[in-house]
Amino acid sequence: MKKYEQIVQDIETYINTNQLEQGTRLLSVESYAKQYDVSKSTIIKALDTLEKRGSIFQQRGSGVFVRKQRRDDYINLLTNRGFTKELANFNITTQLIKLEVMTPNEEVRHNLKLEAHEEVYYVERLRNIDGNRLCIEVSYFPKKFVPYLNQEIANGSIFTYIAEALKLNISFADAYLHVDILSNTDAQKLELPEHSPALFLDQVVYLATGEPFDYSKLTYNYKYSKFFVQSMNH
Amino acid sequence: MKKYEQIVQDIETYINTNQLEQGTRLLSVESYAKQYDVSKSTIIKALDTLEKRGSIFQQRGSGVFVRKQRRDDYINLLTNRGFTKELANFNITTQLIKLEVMTPNEEVRHNLKLEAHEEVYYVERLRNIDGNRLCIEVSYFPKKFVPYLNQEIANGSIFTYIAEALKLNISFADAYLHVDILSNTDAQKLELPEHSPALFLDQVVYLATGEPFDYSKLTYNYKYSKFFVQSMNH
Repeated sequence: MKKYEQIVQDIETYINTNQLEQGTRLLSVESYAKQYDVSKSTIIKALDTLEKRGSIFQQRGSGVFVRKQRRDDYINLLTNRGFTKELANFNITTQLIKLEVMTPNEEVRHNLKLEAHEEVYYVERLRNIDGNRLCIEVSYFPKKFVPYLNQEIANGSIFTYIAEALKLNISFADAYLHVDILSNTDAQKLELPEHSPALFLDQVVYLATGEPFDYSKLTYNYKYSKFFVQSMNH
Repeated sequence: MKKYEQIVQDIETYINTNQLEQGTRLLSVESYAKQYDVSKSTIIKALDTLEKRGSIFQQRGSGVFVRKQRRDDYINLLTNRGFTKELANFNITTQLIKLEVMTPNEEVRHNLKLEAHEEVYYVERLRNIDGNRLCIEVSYFPKKFVPYLNQEIANGSIFTYIAEALKLNISFADAYLHVDILSNTDAQKLELPEHSPALFLDQVVYLATGEPFDYSKLTYNYKYSKFFVQSMNH
């Protein structure tokens, strides 16, 4: 871990451990540089990362302040750190339904920019939150990026495996969402009455090279689908 | 407009006019610096802004590439540039239902960090997309930040008015969303059958000082609620 990454983690832990409120003033760049005995540019890099993550905001000339999610029971919508990491504060369990190698259809190929002959791992999982069905997650990983997957890995965090075992650099994600009525099959899987509403999320996750390595389709139980998104005005 | 902002706009126009595909390589920092006759640090600032906006991605040592929304009919979920600007590519019309000064309830006060005596402008609007009901939008603007609003302003873009006439610096937003069944009143307003599903979006928008100046509750017609969110892994 690089020095600035360590500082990012440190400041986040400090904010969380002390349960600092939004708007709480943090140290200045100069004070942090002194505290960590590093250059100002290292601190600036750490603070920029924290700002991009939505943990702080910086006000030119006036300081650095805590930025806080204000509703605890909402889930961060953007799961490009992977489901398991993003939802570490929730009691999430995973049930693997299906894991196989297959040749994907046109829609999947289009989203993953694959040639007709290229194979993918198909992974279908149920995610539970506090013992209740949260969502159905269907994912496609091209074999050229993820040459090996097994049940044990798919029962845990595939993203952690991709980042740590395969050393791939996960970079950005596009998410598309809409609301509709559940099919009867999906209603059954989510243990909901027929014709219940649902949130549908399609997500394409990219490597730092710009190559898509994960196309996932998530169907969320509306009862537990409370999402949070932070944004900056650029 | 600052020089780097002009460059940001230029490059975005270039990408859009030429309908460049995701992954298309753009010029290097050096070439852009030469083309615009500015310092490399100005170009770096422009490219960082474009990356934060989701218009490009930068690959260390290998170049700058176009990043593109891949589904044209999806709306950017994060409307902290204001509804009107965010949806400039869609045929959006606005119908003002109610505009009044009022003392808000506890929930609104909490989200806008207001004292009990502080007043707000209450604005209720219907938004149509291609002539169909897109959403009901209820917004609260504290009078201390927005001392004056009228029907003409509320029929257009309140955000443009706030940024350009009131010179307030709109900075970041928190959005909370969930899915549920519409109330009968709202179903009527959205011209939908009773018990239709809907996407509910609560949004708090902040000034650069960290002070919230807009709390809005949007109720989206599920038929036209197709949203797009880009994210970076930080």
